[in-house]
Amino acid sequence: MSEQVMVTEVGPRDGLQIAAGRMPTPVKIRWIAAMAAAGLREIEVGSFVPPRVVPQMADTAEVVRATVALPSVTVLALAPNLRGAQDAYANGAHRIVIPVSVSEGHSRANLNRTPAEQIAEVARMAEWVRAQPRAMGIEAACSTAFGCSIDGVVAPAAVVAVAEGLVAAGVDSLALADTVGYAHPAQIRTLVRTVRAAVGEKLVRLHLHDTMGLGLANALAGVEEGIRQFDSALAGLGGCPFAPGASGNIVTEDLVFMLESMGLPTGTDLGALIAARAILAEGLPGETLRGGLGRAGIPRTYRLAA
Amino acid sequence: MSEQVMVTEVGPRDGLQIAAGRMPTPVKIRWIAAMAAAGLREIEVGSFVPPRVVPQMADTAEVVRATVALPSVTVLALAPNLRGAQDAYANGAHRIVIPVSVSEGHSRANLNRTPAEQIAEVARMAEWVRAQPRAMGIEAACSTAFGCSIDGVVAPAAVVAVAEGLVAAGVDSLALADTVGYAHPAQIRTLVRTVRAAVGEKLVRLHLHDTMGLGLANALAGVEEGIRQFDSALAGLGGCPFAPGASGNIVTEDLVFMLESMGLPTGTDLGALIAARAILAEGLPGETLRGGLGRAGIPRTYRLAA
Repeated sequence: MSEQVMVTEVGPRDGLQIAAGRMPTPVKIRWIAAMAAAGLREIEVGSFVPPRVVPQMADTAEVVRATVALPSVTVLALAPNLRGAQDAYANGAHRIVIPVSVSEGHSRANLNRTPAEQIAEVARMAEWVRAQPRAMGIEAACSTAFGCSIDGVVAPAAVVAVAEGLVAAGVDSLALADTVGYAHPAQIRTLVRTVRAAVGEKLVRLHLHDTMGLGLANALAGVEEGIRQFDSALAGLGGCPFAPGASGNIVTEDLVFMLESMGLPTGTDLGALIAARAILAEGLPGETLRGGLGRAGIPRTYRLAA
Repeated sequence: MSEQVMVTEVGPRDGLQIAAGRMPTPVKIRWIAAMAAAGLREIEVGSFVPPRVVPQMADTAEVVRATVALPSVTVLALAPNLRGAQDAYANGAHRIVIPVSVSEGHSRANLNRTPAEQIAEVARMAEWVRAQPRAMGIEAACSTAFGCSIDGVVAPAAVVAVAEGLVAAGVDSLALADTVGYAHPAQIRTLVRTVRAAVGEKLVRLHLHDTMGLGLANALAGVEEGIRQFDSALAGLGGCPFAPGASGNIVTEDLVFMLESMGLPTGTDLGALIAARAILAEGLPGETLRGGLGRAGIPRTYRLAA
């Protein structure tokens, strides 16, 4: 293996949205800039959702406007509906990420819609975006694809149905999201193959949580199945409001260490990434920062042991 | 994959030896008994080393004598030298584990011997053990096989040389130990293949630490290379005195979750394992208990999602 892997930082969105504290906007922008300078080329910087629902994301428009001006970074924003897509577009986001729960229970709890209703919304969003003069990417994330804390087991056939619906709705690309952290490596392999058999190269990404400690094992399985785009969060920030005890996204710096060690370049500077944890700590005092490398430092064998 | 995997609990030895507190002997025995009752069939219960060096292990003789009386559990004890092997034998241990550092720096720091001197000691130990009326297993662990915090990169050829020396010295089986947690999955695959090419089925085990967050990814790589015995510690207890910031062994309950989810039976009761964390917490108040399942609970899809 020697291909480039895209590590997409989602901490400013998926991490901060459920943090107890609220990161000041200037610190947030500085943190994102530091991660971009460390070589992360795709960063999900916020979420266009009502501020009364997610107050931590109230400054998303300002953050998008500030960060699209950074060199060499693709700025992503979550948009759950047409209004969100329009706001993302108006503020210059390069790509929107649309959450679409596969399980009925999570879909109703998170979006107040059925999966079918959300797919219909995605079709409206795609139609609107395609009609605008500027190009903006559209990715949909199949949430709860590996299981749901509300509905339990999620059938692979249900994931395929949602994925096919989203491709028909006009998205550019698809992610499979282990929203509540229930996935295991064999399941990753099976579901990636199954969904790819249905929608081919539209499936590009895994969004993994480290709830059960299996996050990087699941990423490894994904890499070995040919996935080359992964969401992660610096210091493993994040979780899920519907997954009690969920411990957040897979840790960006640990993921980078694993990939680079295996000969898969990420284009990042690991030391600079770890250093960016300090800005996160400054902006969110008291928040638990997770991760092996942040605690233990970079192994002296980094990139030297094959 | 549908073979049985042996999960060998090493928390009472590798975990407790560097804990800040000292677990009272009766609690230690109760904790070991609870883990045995939860289905762990091999438990490393202590270390026959001078009490002035590792005071937490001063009760190892008593713990071995108490736990060999438990039904259906193989009791292991670490023994770094002939004296330790004799003590282990005298107290009825079923198997000894002998640490043999591959790197010169770690060998001197940990054992005050060169690797070659330690291999010679292993030969003396094996000769003595074989001359006794009762059978006692002899396993050697190739420490720092994946890198060393003191010496840096450890050459695979050095690991092979130590492994071959240990087989010639008469051990029953070998482990590769990622003592300082530097390993990555590609390295696991390569080294397992390389060492197996040299010593065949004598290589049975991986001893992994989760220092960089890659512990279960490394275990996955090991499983896929055919390794069927893994050391782990309940709640991820442990670390290494020569690896600052090391965060301990891979987490027994998370490893069990991964293996069982993948259709590899471990013979354990996951709920009972998690419940045994309470005894650990009682015996070592203030110690950090790690692990995903201990925090988040057992996913409701456990063993239901293929």
